[in-house]
Amino acid sequence: MPILRVNVRTRTAQVEPTPPTWQPLGGRGLIARILLDMVPPTADPLGPRNVLIFAPGLLGGHRLSSVDRISVGGKSPLTQGVKEANAGGRTGWAIARLGYKAILFEDQPRDGRWWVVHISRDGVRFDPADDLVGLGTYETAARLRERYGFGPQAALALIGPAGERQMRAAGIAHIDKDGVPSRLAARGGLGAVMGSKGIKAILVDPAGSPAIPLAQPEVFKQARKAYLQALLAHPQTHIYETYGTAAMVNMCNRLGGLPTRNFSQGQFEHAERISGEALRQLILQRNGQGATAHACMAGCSIQCSNIVPDAHGQPLVSPLEYETIALMGSNLGIADLDAIAQLNFYANDLGLDTIDLGAALGVAAEAGLWPFGQANQALALVQQIYDNTPLGRLLGNGAAITGRVLGVRRVPAVKGQAISAYDPRAIKGTGVTYATSPQGADHTAGLTIRAQIDHLDPHVQGPVSRQAQLLMAGYDTLGVCIFAAFGFAKAPETIPALLRGRYGWDVPEDILLRLGRETIRLERAFNRAAGFTPAHDRIPEWMTQEPLPPTNSVFDVPDEVLTTLWQDLD
Amino acid sequence: MPILRVNVRTRTAQVEPTPPTWQPLGGRGLIARILLDMVPPTADPLGPRNVLIFAPGLLGGHRLSSVDRISVGGKSPLTQGVKEANAGGRTGWAIARLGYKAILFEDQPRDGRWWVVHISRDGVRFDPADDLVGLGTYETAARLRERYGFGPQAALALIGPAGERQMRAAGIAHIDKDGVPSRLAARGGLGAVMGSKGIKAILVDPAGSPAIPLAQPEVFKQARKAYLQALLAHPQTHIYETYGTAAMVNMCNRLGGLPTRNFSQGQFEHAERISGEALRQLILQRNGQGATAHACMAGCSIQCSNIVPDAHGQPLVSPLEYETIALMGSNLGIADLDAIAQLNFYANDLGLDTIDLGAALGVAAEAGLWPFGQANQALALVQQIYDNTPLGRLLGNGAAITGRVLGVRRVPAVKGQAISAYDPRAIKGTGVTYATSPQGADHTAGLTIRAQIDHLDPHVQGPVSRQAQLLMAGYDTLGVCIFAAFGFAKAPETIPALLRGRYGWDVPEDILLRLGRETIRLERAFNRAAGFTPAHDRIPEWMTQEPLPPTNSVFDVPDEVLTTLWQDLD
Repeated sequence: MPILRVNVRTRTAQVEPTPPTWQPLGGRGLIARILLDMVPPTADPLGPRNVLIFAPGLLGGHRLSSVDRISVGGKSPLTQGVKEANAGGRTGWAIARLGYKAILFEDQPRDGRWWVVHISRDGVRFDPADDLVGLGTYETAARLRERYGFGPQAALALIGPAGERQMRAAGIAHIDKDGVPSRLAARGGLGAVMGSKGIKAILVDPAGSPAIPLAQPEVFKQARKAYLQALLAHPQTHIYETYGTAAMVNMCNRLGGLPTRNFSQGQFEHAERISGEALRQLILQRNGQGATAHACMAGCSIQCSNIVPDAHGQPLVSPLEYETIALMGSNLGIADLDAIAQLNFYANDLGLDTIDLGAALGVAAEAGLWPFGQANQALALVQQIYDNTPLGRLLGNGAAITGRVLGVRRVPAVKGQAISAYDPRAIKGTGVTYATSPQGADHTAGLTIRAQIDHLDPHVQGPVSRQAQLLMAGYDTLGVCIFAAFGFAKAPETIPALLRGRYGWDVPEDILLRLGRETIRLERAFNRAAGFTPAHDRIPEWMTQEPLPPTNSVFDVPDEVLTTLWQDLD
Repeated sequence: MPILRVNVRTRTAQVEPTPPTWQPLGGRGLIARILLDMVPPTADPLGPRNVLIFAPGLLGGHRLSSVDRISVGGKSPLTQGVKEANAGGRTGWAIARLGYKAILFEDQPRDGRWWVVHISRDGVRFDPADDLVGLGTYETAARLRERYGFGPQAALALIGPAGERQMRAAGIAHIDKDGVPSRLAARGGLGAVMGSKGIKAILVDPAGSPAIPLAQPEVFKQARKAYLQALLAHPQTHIYETYGTAAMVNMCNRLGGLPTRNFSQGQFEHAERISGEALRQLILQRNGQGATAHACMAGCSIQCSNIVPDAHGQPLVSPLEYETIALMGSNLGIADLDAIAQLNFYANDLGLDTIDLGAALGVAAEAGLWPFGQANQALALVQQIYDNTPLGRLLGNGAAITGRVLGVRRVPAVKGQAISAYDPRAIKGTGVTYATSPQGADHTAGLTIRAQIDHLDPHVQGPVSRQAQLLMAGYDTLGVCIFAAFGFAKAPETIPALLRGRYGWDVPEDILLRLGRETIRLERAFNRAAGFTPAHDRIPEWMTQEPLPPTNSVFDVPDEVLTTLWQDLD
């Protein structure tokens, strides 16, 4: 498959053969390779030398259940390092189906104009989008749907006001199978990179594209079947279908690791009011257009997503996920699912990462700008982001900058990116992941909460985090959703089989780990050249000093573990 | 001489012998040594593990002309690296005279209370200062003068609201020989470190202290005489006496390197209205309490300082210096010396670095928050810092953060610290200094404007910057003012002679360069452990791309020069 290179300054595009060293990679791993090859590591992430990359995973384009995620990447304006953020929706499938290994957006316009980049079998077109400036993602998507009348297979990736204004917590929204721009490649400020390139939206229409040819169709078919069976047989699949990711609220609360009031506590006294059970009950009671089991992409059998209805049964937001419930709920002292859903809606509409925004709001409460628990005041602060006030801009740039400016020491962030919904003092393996992931603190880079270990023991976390990080880097390179991993874990032989069926490759059994290793090796190489050292692979100092109730644990995994975790890859 | 260690949590102090490896150093070099020995390089600069250090230079305490500067240091909350900022005034002399090699403030109070630390021959006392919270430096100094009735030799170091609120562009003010808190150890946020330690002011009263014993009094006396003769004979000394540092306005403007309207131009069409000549004329015309030749410390023969009077002859601010005139004048499009002096006064009163604040205001104008040239609007923004609004906090945290939050790419900063009043595209040797100094962009770390070279030639700047940096690091270790260097340059043999006279040391002739080398070696070692790499030794990318009128030059010193400049020291 070739790559598509789009120059946003000259507004031209060309199809080029994929370099041999890029071919064995996809998604996250391919992004790391491209960044190393094309972006000077010291480049300004919002300048002309950064490249915005859209790369489906190696297994994308076949409607394998939960395997069509899109990886978006570039040098991060938030962390200043390598960045990959992935999302469900249609984009991964559409790009692969259109026959591209990846799409690269290069350079920077000089005229301040805005564009919809229209990509189809007819080529690449720049359509003026100046009329869409300032519009939220929902309105933008609605107008573009009307303007282009695209079909159910076309994908749309777009930014909201946050990305336009180059706020560093801005993500890129992708429409889901229903056309709702609800799937955010949220983390690390890639929306700001898209904004810096003058792109309001990217429409990828694969209409008329033939199916992707398979090297060994029968091998692929058998492997697909075996994988799907394993996935459907896994009990966790049904928990996600029933409760969505919100099932994690109670689990994390029990372990004392649920971020509460700006990470000052690990248990929330109202946890049951924001739990997966409570959310399910609310959706079922209100009924209407709500849904407890909802697929973000065609072909997904897990359906962890949901649609939260308001009191009248109208959609309030979709999906409401664990990370958002924690960061915009317990972390803000808010126990009201409606308010959390409302905050989530505005974050999506602005095109902002709910984790970094939630953490920033927590820091703002810590600074005395509003009282924890007063959802209306949190919503008023979010309104300032729409209004582009200095305070709004501050919040839109995420928790780390907000903490610096407001003079707060208790800021949950690593490498400038907010810690997600697992307090590293209570779930220390995930703390190791936060500290050592080349991505910065990230909830998808290697969770450890399901490992059968004592999460408080500082001496057993290193290998657990490492293995989780390697697996996730591998899955992110394949385009596989974190929840599909339950299926692949039960049928690991299907991964080499699918790659053989798709590409004819004769890959080793442990190809998943090999892809993960290569990905993290490349990412660390980029980060090293960008100026990262072991000093950056650390949890915030205050978390090593301030005990977290109720476990009263601090993060005490030895620095040596963090420093040496990836030494063999460097 | 022993060191004094003050623990601000337990409110206790103890006198300890100076470790042997600390003895050959003073001022800036000693600070680097202490940081390496005592502060974990990854420590939070505003947390309990940072140490705030006050260290006179090796030659401090003798009223040698312009050689009693105080070096203040710690890990910088602005750059996250090593930091030394020095100032005139009384503090250097008083600490040396009291018999201390250095005073260290360690740990962090837990109770949120504020203190005046009173240091005299009677020991160390913590006096409550909660009543002074929120007061500017001028009012605080006045109240403390009244409260303590201290004599003309006692020193006072204090912070304003900016330091209390831990704004990262906050400095530490020192009273001058007249008791005015006008001498700021401004750069790198050391005022925030002092604030993080609950110290509003430090009073050092050497009353009753005997003269510092000299190892070879006659040698010292002769060297002192020879140095003073060389200094007084130097024509530059008289230029500084006549025009102060403001003489630089015309020189820099001619070279096309005067920061104008947020570094978008290198010449200011109204430069002559803010020049040294204009300033001198204004002071002489208004007369009253104004002064063109004013000494910041007792015994100074250069008297580069000034007192700017208002229309009624009352003091408006003292001193008004080149860096401030450029950053708060031409850089803001302001051609009115009264307005610049007013901005300077408020910055001093808040306890803020005029360079980082001026640069932040320029970035804010670039972002459209106010129109360049409208001084009243700039003053209104400064008022927001007093009011502690989010925007005020933003500005008080300096240009780099302001640019990030406001979404401005044209931000003049290196390692998070604002570039001073020499545009690196027109005076490229100083650009090399900005990029490679362990201190971040800094106007005292090694200027090159007086070198007899083509300042636009990218290929001759490396060695010039290196030599200037080594000399300045040496002078900063001796406690020598940058302008006293003219004297020492003419009589270099007086430096080893003064050290022999003072300590009995038999030091080599090139001791100045050796001290400079050792200082930079130690600083780089600390920075390396704190996470700095060659990737951080760079000028902002936009300055390598955007030509600066009228020379239309970009910063094009090869990266290789920056990367290798200090390689032999690492």
